[in-house]
Amino acid sequence: MLKTEHLFERLHEVYPDLIELRRDLHMYPELSFQEVNTPQKIADYLADLGLEVRTGVGGRGVVGLLKGGRPGKTIALRADFDALPIQDEKEVEYKSRIPGVMHACGHDIHTAGLLGVARVLSEVREELEGNIVFIHQFAEEKIPGGAKAMIEDGCLDGVDVIYGAHVWSPIPIGTVGVGEGPMMAAMDSFEIEIRGKGGHGATPHLTVDSLVLGSQLVLQLQQIVSRRVDPLKPAVVTVGTFAAGEAFNIIPDTAKITGTVRSFEESVRDLIEKSIGQITSSACEGAGASAHFTFTRGYPAVWNHPEETNKVEELAKKLLEESKVKRIAPIMAGEDFSYYLQKVPGSFFFVGGGNEELEATYPHHHPRFNVDERSMLITGQLFISLVLDYLSGGDAKQKPVMEEISKS
Amino acid sequence: MLKTEHLFERLHEVYPDLIELRRDLHMYPELSFQEVNTPQKIADYLADLGLEVRTGVGGRGVVGLLKGGRPGKTIALRADFDALPIQDEKEVEYKSRIPGVMHACGHDIHTAGLLGVARVLSEVREELEGNIVFIHQFAEEKIPGGAKAMIEDGCLDGVDVIYGAHVWSPIPIGTVGVGEGPMMAAMDSFEIEIRGKGGHGATPHLTVDSLVLGSQLVLQLQQIVSRRVDPLKPAVVTVGTFAAGEAFNIIPDTAKITGTVRSFEESVRDLIEKSIGQITSSACEGAGASAHFTFTRGYPAVWNHPEETNKVEELAKKLLEESKVKRIAPIMAGEDFSYYLQKVPGSFFFVGGGNEELEATYPHHHPRFNVDERSMLITGQLFISLVLDYLSGGDAKQKPVMEEISKS
Amino acid sequence: MLKTEHLFERLHEVYPDLIELRRDLHMYPELSFQEVNTPQKIADYLADLGLEVRTGVGGRGVVGLLKGGRPGKTIALRADFDALPIQDEKEVEYKSRIPGVMHACGHDIHTAGLLGVARVLSEVREELEGNIVFIHQFAEEKIPGGAKAMIEDGCLDGVDVIYGAHVWSPIPIGTVGVGEGPMMAAMDSFEIEIRGKGGHGATPHLTVDSLVLGSQLVLQLQQIVSRRVDPLKPAVVTVGTFAAGEAFNIIPDTAKITGTVRSFEESVRDLIEKSIGQITSSACEGAGASAHFTFTRGYPAVWNHPEETNKVEELAKKLLEESKVKRIAPIMAGEDFSYYLQKVPGSFFFVGGGNEELEATYPHHHPRFNVDERSMLITGQLFISLVLDYLSGGDAKQKPVMEEISKS
Amino acid sequence: MLKTEHLFERLHEVYPDLIELRRDLHMYPELSFQEVNTPQKIADYLADLGLEVRTGVGGRGVVGLLKGGRPGKTIALRADFDALPIQDEKEVEYKSRIPGVMHACGHDIHTAGLLGVARVLSEVREELEGNIVFIHQFAEEKIPGGAKAMIEDGCLDGVDVIYGAHVWSPIPIGTVGVGEGPMMAAMDSFEIEIRGKGGHGATPHLTVDSLVLGSQLVLQLQQIVSRRVDPLKPAVVTVGTFAAGEAFNIIPDTAKITGTVRSFEESVRDLIEKSIGQITSSACEGAGASAHFTFTRGYPAVWNHPEETNKVEELAKKLLEESKVKRIAPIMAGEDFSYYLQKVPGSFFFVGGGNEELEATYPHHHPRFNVDERSMLITGQLFISLVLDYLSGGDAKQKPVMEEISKS
Repeated sequence: MLKTEHLFERLHEVYPDLIELRRDLHMYPELSFQEVNTPQKIADYLADLGLEVRTGVGGRGVVGLLKGGRPGKTIALRADFDALPIQDEKEVEYKSRIPGVMHACGHDIHTAGLLGVARVLSEVREELEGNIVFIHQFAEEKIPGGAKAMIEDGCLDGVDVIYGAHVWSPIPIGTVGVGEGPMMAAMDSFEIEIRGKGGHGATPHLTVDSLVLGSQLVLQLQQIVSRRVDPLKPAVVTVGTFAAGEAFNIIPDTAKITGTVRSFEESVRDLIEKSIGQITSSACEGAGASAHFTFTRGYPAVWNHPEETNKVEELAKKLLEESKVKRIAPIMAGEDFSYYLQKVPGSFFFVGGGNEELEATYPHHHPRFNVDERSMLITGQLFISLVLDYLSGGDAKQKPVMEEISKS
Repeated sequence: MLKTEHLFERLHEVYPDLIELRRDLHMYPELSFQEVNTPQKIADYLADLGLEVRTGVGGRGVVGLLKGGRPGKTIALRADFDALPIQDEKEVEYKSRIPGVMHACGHDIHTAGLLGVARVLSEVREELEGNIVFIHQFAEEKIPGGAKAMIEDGCLDGVDVIYGAHVWSPIPIGTVGVGEGPMMAAMDSFEIEIRGKGGHGATPHLTVDSLVLGSQLVLQLQQIVSRRVDPLKPAVVTVGTFAAGEAFNIIPDTAKITGTVRSFEESVRDLIEKSIGQITSSACEGAGASAHFTFTRGYPAVWNHPEETNKVEELAKKLLEESKVKRIAPIMAGEDFSYYLQKVPGSFFFVGGGNEELEATYPHHHPRFNVDERSMLITGQLFISLVLDYLSGGDAKQKPVMEEISKS
Repeated sequence: MLKTEHLFERLHEVYPDLIELRRDLHMYPELSFQEVNTPQKIADYLADLGLEVRTGVGGRGVVGLLKGGRPGKTIALRADFDALPIQDEKEVEYKSRIPGVMHACGHDIHTAGLLGVARVLSEVREELEGNIVFIHQFAEEKIPGGAKAMIEDGCLDGVDVIYGAHVWSPIPIGTVGVGEGPMMAAMDSFEIEIRGKGGHGATPHLTVDSLVLGSQLVLQLQQIVSRRVDPLKPAVVTVGTFAAGEAFNIIPDTAKITGTVRSFEESVRDLIEKSIGQITSSACEGAGASAHFTFTRGYPAVWNHPEETNKVEELAKKLLEESKVKRIAPIMAGEDFSYYLQKVPGSFFFVGGGNEELEATYPHHHPRFNVDERSMLITGQLFISLVLDYLSGGDAKQKPVMEEISKS
Repeated sequence: MLKTEHLFERLHEVYPDLIELRRDLHMYPELSFQEVNTPQKIADYLADLGLEVRTGVGGRGVVGLLKGGRPGKTIALRADFDALPIQDEKEVEYKSRIPGVMHACGHDIHTAGLLGVARVLSEVREELEGNIVFIHQFAEEKIPGGAKAMIEDGCLDGVDVIYGAHVWSPIPIGTVGVGEGPMMAAMDSFEIEIRGKGGHGATPHLTVDSLVLGSQLVLQLQQIVSRRVDPLKPAVVTVGTFAAGEAFNIIPDTAKITGTVRSFEESVRDLIEKSIGQITSSACEGAGASAHFTFTRGYPAVWNHPEETNKVEELAKKLLEESKVKRIAPIMAGEDFSYYLQKVPGSFFFVGGGNEELEATYPHHHPRFNVDERSMLITGQLFISLVLDYLSGGDAKQKPVMEEISKS
């Protein structure tokens, strides 16, 4: 029988390599839908481990299949590997070498951590009852994302359950956050171009003032959340940009507004999309203007399955002190992990990465973002626990991970 | 040849009677469309003078015809005689005896003054070249007013020119205000009932919040004047009442708004009526509500004819010191004298009635409103001057009236 | 050992009396803080059962103490007994005899049901290990409510745990709804009187338009929920009334707004109170107006304790089919049961009362509101189960209640 | 005695030269405050005529003094000579040779026309009783303008009266528009930078949303004209630009608004400046934001003196058919001619330049703007008439100019 403890030890042994791997990824980040070298590195690594590797999955994804020595179920683990158009402003030796591009969300951690899991598990493949699919996803940061395309390209074929993790700087290293049901928001965007009739600022009566109309619209949109959405159902309608006019004394022809919408239920998304459209068209009609309105559905909400979430919680509590594992409130950010959970059961959880000593305290997407690299260990151990538990190949006994961490 | 001076002397001689007459009217005011005794008194007075008198003109109006001894043109002079639903709070001996009804706009002054003019002129009828029509109008204070009905009932038949005056407390006794073109505003009213869907205050998503919609509408209506009406054309859109809801924790089914509109041109009235309707229906449509909107046209703008206005100015300057006669800005209040001016040339002017010593300083329609009664003398002299000038029966020479006033 | 089943049988036997009792209460409802006969009837009933009875608790409350034959813990059960200022429009024989007053929220059901529980348990007092406190509360419908005063007057002294139930017409007879944590909203109210400067509708520049300012305020208040409150924390700010102006052509001096606020956390209440005040005072300052703003804290949120809620759920599932017991979403309405839960552990749950055949389908506070009276049986059985379980005096075995119901 | 007719004939004779002059200016326009060659050309021209010439007046202005042969009063005539940052899109041979710079407002016409007047009058200087000051002004198009600086540099010293004219494409060639009192608006500008607190679009509660606040501000600004300014006093408050945010899903730190204000009275300017400031600061305070507000006074209103305006009207009616000279409504655009009129009596009038056959129908400041060059003849004849009338040196008899025009 597989000893979980043994696998954890192996993970610790390879940990220095993972750090090296992660820092290499960190120095050479690649933007969403422009990933070339990153998937190549991943594919090479997995191939070296002897896994069956498919590249170009759904475009730029990499999928590694680890077939166990014995038949059984198939569990998938996912990490994303794209970076952001942000200039790295940290002062570390492994700072991004690519101007204006940065791993400011921890996807380098996810990738290196999952490769470490693959390495450790590949060493015991003969003893595994079932299979493990390593899904290395491209383009999580940019709609339409890589998940949907990878699923359509078969990455979930035969998969029975899936888990994913996100390193999270707002919670400290050594903690894990889980949640059942709605965990991360559906994330939509919209654009409205109001077309009035411009003219001189001194003769408003000869114009249809698109700027005033745009302002009115922004205020009316506030009523969607305050009046139209069930107060028990979280929702956000944010206008992020308002651009109208080029001269102080000319009433502009057009005003352009863009924004984002967050919610957790399809019915709320529908209501909001319909409401923005209805408010826009009627406001324009009342003013004698017209509008071009587009609403773009982004990722649906990440909706964690109860049983799989309870499993994460249970195993995390074995790994860490009980008090370090918490049910956390849903997060209004979005994730295309949602698409996987629409197909198979699973859960997406958060692994603490914050550490004041390391100045790993900045929010995600910040130019000085960083995390405690030991989050790779915790994520890795939790993934290994989940694999062994699911494939019934492990003893599910282990020492608390914080002790291990304190060693490293 | 008629001596204007002689007629002015006669007016001074009857002035005590006019005061008595005015105070009697003041004690027994009658509301618009409910005048019974007032027109009877007027008709009796005019009949006693030997004029041809028609009563019930257009409903409750009285018209006296003074035929001159020689043929000529026909000039009309108009006074209104209705009172207001206001409780008299002045402390004078001739305070209103009718609870809740008061001559708070000076129509008693108009009536008594014009009767004085009739009396003086009736004494010289044989010498007059032409005719004088004395129009005593009912119901000026309440839409649709008496003017229109009296015109339809023939009160202007054969009339060549018309003059009217309003005693005006905001300007001091001994002054006259004239204006060419737009003098008093068109005065319209509107009602909007917004029909949403009520419900509990804790579940706004199950309602269509008529109160929020009404508030939005009030703000949107501000854009009519600020954006839609030519800035060079005066206009006012005022919401006077907003009534919605009966309980703090219940979202009301309906919200009701009423308001008034002032302007000076028919095109502006049309624009405003159309705009309110358009804004209302589109705002309701955007919210899923409906609305019942009514726009009631009140009196059109009083638009003074240039030549006749110049005549008033010229004669007033002969009567008073030149500096006491001023071109004044248009007044946003309304008057149904406008209907007469749509039919025949003429002018409507303002005769100062303010006097601090007499506490005649309150605005029109105030419970303590009063005016200096000598305004009857000035109005009377100006009317007599206009009659003699127009009928070419006078010498147009006279002493300044303020001297006369200082005698009385 | 006490047989739960036996007690349930007794409850069925007295059920006809409970119906009679409930209908008597229904015919003679009494308004909050005006209850006289109702508490007297309750006190008499409990005294007849041999309980120690205190009346006038906190004003008008009644507390009955049933001391068990053996020492043990103390469990409290609570029912409220006030009625609403609503005209009963149902067509039933036991329709309210008091004009304009009605049991439109089911407090008659609560009261009669709890008296039945007292009766049944009083018959087995010798076998009970511990004590039962029957809290009959006045004035739940009207802030500041009766709960707080009764607690201050000692009704919870010595109490270890408390349960309360609400019959609920929106869910069908035979079902129970439970919830952990926030179950019913904190319920606050506010009033804003805006003091501008009135004047004639034609001269807005001489006024400070309180009506426009009030409308602007209503719209600005929408931003509290849409922008200021954490989207994950439910909150409602509803303006229920807007009253300004008496004449369509007069700009009013003042505008008055009242509203209600719902939330589940003290920090959200604080934020909303502060925000309304800040928005109001700054808006008035910007317009040259002043405001009188009052914010009245109503009941805090009902926050159910987890362990006690799990107990209700567990016992309800024994009583009913498992599918009939549901975790329900929090309810935005308020309840002063919250005060009890701030002092001792406990849970407040909802017992289905809806029944289409009986036309028991109207919402609470509706003039035709009614519920299936068998909800007294279910509530009673659940209360009995909770008592026996807590006092360890029962066998916790019973037949599903729906069978029982189908017999009655 | 000087024959006006003779001078008009001379003007016609030099008219071809004026066209050449104007087209040269048109081909080589210079921006406000950057004029170098244009004033040099003017100075050379005036010097050649034997006038006393001052250059660099107030910076870049040119003043020519024509001393009459006999002592008398001093009359000033003014033309402006700067161009606009607009790309000439007309298809004419004399199209602007300077990319992005264009005489799109007719200042080339003003300049050449006034030089023609100087030429004609210089030929009869001995017969003139008094002096003529030719004020060639730089930088009319750009605040703070050249007029104020030229006055401070003495260009009005000894001047008794001043006239200025603007060629005007919206009215046809052969017409003149005059107006007494307010003729062109005071023209101010403002900038507001709202400083909130940015953040992620999904967490509005952690931000102070400057974009929503800016929108609210735009709507509140509408109330200045609709509620605060006397409806009889024309005023415009236009927001011309609104810029906030760079990403659809980020709430921006700041929102920037710029706008223009038009009015005719200093008290209205004061009221509007104060109101924008008051509304801005209070709105920001209410939201927890701050603002940087600047209000820049532009030119005051052009306020024509009555007597001088009547003189223009009278002489124009002699020159043209009576029906071609009209009192026109004030124009909401601004002009720094206002500064001259604050110092000495005078009048500013409009000379028709529109002509469909010549495609001279575009509004001022349009890339295809042009006017009928014969407007130089009409302006010139009217200037000559005003000079002769004022210096009492002419016979004030002449043939209607349209005949003359039809010859040319």
